[in-house]
Amino acid sequence: MTRVLTGIKPTGNIHLGNYVGAIRPALRRAETASESFFFMADIHALNQVQDPELYRKWTYSVAASWLCSGLDPEVSHFYRQSDIPEVFELATILTTITPKGWMNKAHAYKAALDKNREAGIDDDVDINMGLYTYPILMAADILIFDADIVPVGKDQIQHIEITRDIAERINNFYKTEALILPEHELQAAAQAMPGTDGRKMSKSYDNVVPLFASKKEWKTAIYSIVTDSSERHDPKTVDGAAVYDIYAALATEEQTAELRRALEAGELGWGDAKGELLKLLEDVLGESVERYNHYMTNTKELDEILQAGAAKVRPYARETIDRVREAVGI
Amino acid sequence: MTRVLTGIKPTGNIHLGNYVGAIRPALRRAETASESFFFMADIHALNQVQDPELYRKWTYSVAASWLCSGLDPEVSHFYRQSDIPEVFELATILTTITPKGWMNKAHAYKAALDKNREAGIDDDVDINMGLYTYPILMAADILIFDADIVPVGKDQIQHIEITRDIAERINNFYKTEALILPEHELQAAAQAMPGTDGRKMSKSYDNVVPLFASKKEWKTAIYSIVTDSSERHDPKTVDGAAVYDIYAALATEEQTAELRRALEAGELGWGDAKGELLKLLEDVLGESVERYNHYMTNTKELDEILQAGAAKVRPYARETIDRVREAVGI
Repeated sequence: MTRVLTGIKPTGNIHLGNYVGAIRPALRRAETASESFFFMADIHALNQVQDPELYRKWTYSVAASWLCSGLDPEVSHFYRQSDIPEVFELATILTTITPKGWMNKAHAYKAALDKNREAGIDDDVDINMGLYTYPILMAADILIFDADIVPVGKDQIQHIEITRDIAERINNFYKTEALILPEHELQAAAQAMPGTDGRKMSKSYDNVVPLFASKKEWKTAIYSIVTDSSERHDPKTVDGAAVYDIYAALATEEQTAELRRALEAGELGWGDAKGELLKLLEDVLGESVERYNHYMTNTKELDEILQAGAAKVRPYARETIDRVREAVGI
Repeated sequence: MTRVLTGIKPTGNIHLGNYVGAIRPALRRAETASESFFFMADIHALNQVQDPELYRKWTYSVAASWLCSGLDPEVSHFYRQSDIPEVFELATILTTITPKGWMNKAHAYKAALDKNREAGIDDDVDINMGLYTYPILMAADILIFDADIVPVGKDQIQHIEITRDIAERINNFYKTEALILPEHELQAAAQAMPGTDGRKMSKSYDNVVPLFASKKEWKTAIYSIVTDSSERHDPKTVDGAAVYDIYAALATEEQTAELRRALEAGELGWGDAKGELLKLLEDVLGESVERYNHYMTNTKELDEILQAGAAKVRPYARETIDRVREAVGI
């Protein structure tokens, strides 16, 4: 029996890079788990998004994006962190035994600290306690559901180690086995999806192709992809071309091979390739876009799905918190 | 309409010094409030008491002590912090907007830090995150119930200021009035109750007279009170004599004047005065001791009282958390 848990932080709209690099591998991983948990880490997101309207929009849009990418709430558990009050109770209890020194080592905090030191300003400028205590809340997210496996990128391995350290400390202090130590699982190196400017696709570079969008939005993004200046009938260098790489990430092997052949043979220009990419998006994602739009105009359905998900998992959370309360003496 | 809120941290058995310095003034203050809240700050206590048996014992013993000192759960709200999950949810949300720099200023943390620096060891040795984040959890304790007034000693004023700052920050950030800013109220300087060795009565000096105890325990404590070496028939200096001061804190004015007269006149020796003090304790506290012992052998009754108290106040907590969730966009 393996419980795999994945947190999803709704801090922006989902783009193709997220889909290929995070959503698709996570959904594939869930297929081989005996039980999979996906949760909207909406309280973590509050550290970054302090605009209620945007925050609500992104939470819905990200939830809808996962659902329309294939997350089946009948098969996986899908819920909002903020609907599981036991998470906050556990985080508060964990706080009472977590050494402050452990927080100082966390990458995200250290990055903010280094930035302040480089700027020659006070260590704590613009650092909020949500950032500093992030590893504790994340530990609670994981431990409350006895997760065995947490798939992570390299930069997140440390958080799973802190989670294990905190769990072990409670178990040792109180001579209990109340908490299960999770294992991290390094996610297969995701395909590096380039953005429209050739750099890694990322909101912060403003170079994204949105995942679920109108044909017009797709078109605008795709036709802004940079290419070399070769003419239509020139044989083209495909490797390293953003339009080709984006296409390859979504197409079948046959489709990809055919596009490569045609570009290298000078049968297609870059503009044609962009046309092919647009067609591919419509083929592969078109129906999902309709579902996505339906959810975004009927957010109550999203609330219902997420609340039903929370109702299904809260008994597990209750069991864990009861074990912990018993162990510490509450 | 004034809501007065008082937290009670169960980190040891209650002694006469606690009764005179904290319990009695708090209960008197509650009499003039339109609504009073008393809560067992049991999660705060977890920072210090990491022995489940002792922790349970102290939580029960402190709760029973307040009840037997006159706290009426039909008149005041009396509950355990750990029975109000909304407190932890609010604390977690407050964490996302609290600047780290604010925590660095808190007295308790600074004292621990200074100790480490004096010892020439790393800043964070033996400092846990519960200590560091204490002001946030305390803010949640207060804000969740819209408390207007928090009676405090001098060293706690700062915590109320941090609570106000956090509440104001949420209200400003989110252009809301979701949180009510509490006022501190400096507790009338409590009578300094001396311990058996003449220093301030305190667990850490091991010089306490227990509040609710057997006659034998009282006797042992009282007969260990230090006195000067005057003989029975010597006229005695009453001012500064611990046995007299302890007596005075519990007796009527008439009783106190009579003891002073008799000691100054050389009619009573110090041993006699100790006998009078023992008699006084039996008179004033005897019945309460029986009730206290009843509670301590029937802790289920305490659980019922505290759980009923929590059930009564949770709707208030729910209202606050709903306002805050709405304001931040959850």
